[in-house]
Amino acid sequence: MLIQSPKNEKVKQWKKLLTKKGREQSGRFIVEGEHLVNEAYEAGVVKELIITETFRSKFSETKFDSVPIQIISDPLGKMIGETETPQGIFAVCEKKNETKGDGTRFLLIDAVQDPGNVGTMIRTADASGMDAVIVGKGSVDIYNSKVLRAAQGSHFHLPIIEGQLTEWIAKFKTESIPVYGTSLHKGESMYTVAPSHPFALIVGNEGRGVDPTLLQQTTKNLYIPLYGKSESLNVSVATGILLYYLRGTDGFSQRLTEN
Amino acid sequence: MLIQSPKNEKVKQWKKLLTKKGREQSGRFIVEGEHLVNEAYEAGVVKELIITETFRSKFSETKFDSVPIQIISDPLGKMIGETETPQGIFAVCEKKNETKGDGTRFLLIDAVQDPGNVGTMIRTADASGMDAVIVGKGSVDIYNSKVLRAAQGSHFHLPIIEGQLTEWIAKFKTESIPVYGTSLHKGESMYTVAPSHPFALIVGNEGRGVDPTLLQQTTKNLYIPLYGKSESLNVSVATGILLYYLRGTDGFSQRLTEN
Repeated sequence: MLIQSPKNEKVKQWKKLLTKKGREQSGRFIVEGEHLVNEAYEAGVVKELIITETFRSKFSETKFDSVPIQIISDPLGKMIGETETPQGIFAVCEKKNETKGDGTRFLLIDAVQDPGNVGTMIRTADASGMDAVIVGKGSVDIYNSKVLRAAQGSHFHLPIIEGQLTEWIAKFKTESIPVYGTSLHKGESMYTVAPSHPFALIVGNEGRGVDPTLLQQTTKNLYIPLYGKSESLNVSVATGILLYYLRGTDGFSQRLTEN
Repeated sequence: MLIQSPKNEKVKQWKKLLTKKGREQSGRFIVEGEHLVNEAYEAGVVKELIITETFRSKFSETKFDSVPIQIISDPLGKMIGETETPQGIFAVCEKKNETKGDGTRFLLIDAVQDPGNVGTMIRTADASGMDAVIVGKGSVDIYNSKVLRAAQGSHFHLPIIEGQLTEWIAKFKTESIPVYGTSLHKGESMYTVAPSHPFALIVGNEGRGVDPTLLQQTTKNLYIPLYGKSESLNVSVATGILLYYLRGTDGFSQRLTEN
């Protein structure tokens, strides 16, 4: 059955998922585009597939066994879509509400507001082999469509935990995992720390940086040396530099030195 | 004199500077907001200052000696401004048309389209102490307002050169500066290269990567190891990781090893 009316009950429910409140009340969120829908399906979180009439013509249903599929008109696709040129495929997904973070390498995000930054940081944490990302209060909602898009599917690759950063820092310290804060003016160069296997890195708000009370709880606070005239780095770029530096080179640099 | 009419000749000229064509014809561009205006003024490229009535009340003119100042109505400020909440201060600046890139460390940008990415990469090149950035054909205009904003003033800190990348690569090779391309699938791990003083790094388009013909000209092509399940990194993040890795730690890591 083709859904065409914006007043259809299902459409109303989907539109609620475009707001943080709607996502919190239902425990669900929407992903958009083939790549993210495939990633969500492989992660087993897809509850419902939504495709537009136009997309249907090039669509193979067999791939998405056991998931109910709704066909909607193209104008409705534009209403639900949040990209400029919607592909016409969406999935309603169930939040996993991760609470457990096992492992030894973590990224902690404190009050980062820009969805592109948070999404890029989740993608970078995935790429650099972190075991989980902990997102503290005051950050943008991790199920915001722009966060999901910038993360390019990494939400489905590692646990993204919404939690109290102070509690997590305390937990890491009892496990002897060093916790590094970041601070432009009150830290030490990141090169004062040798890359090590276990670590937790805290990065903070675009303007204010990491909350000072969190910085007091850390093992050490680090900055990235600035060699030119710029006053700071973009927070996602800084996160990438720090995560790759701290995780080390898996023995590569040692081999280079030996040559 | 307060300028209020959108039909005023000056206003028409300023609006042309919001387009790439207008900037190319006049050799000028507009920066917006106190931070960028100050940076442009210190760099000596400001030809004209534009402030809104509201901004004028909190404005100290003495700082901008010898620059003509135009006062405009608040609605005109919104017309010229490209941010959501314009601060009400703008500067018309002269392009420097840099062509000379002296030094030993360079970032080359090939066909990167997103203005936020290009701006962030210019900011990162500044932070990591590069001597110049070379921007090839097919990239977004470096004087686009979003590029200027993301770079946060770094346009005024180091030469940003619009040029032919093939010619620059050839030049670097005659100067024995190693040129590293980046390639996800056809490169070697960046850790196969030891950090060294002189180098030029080429990063490329968000989807296609660096042009294959450029990759054939390089000393070596590198990738950043991916340890998780993500397929790639954001190009600005990748640029940050590579620039900081390649520039080395100024002896820090050696000292760490000695301890």
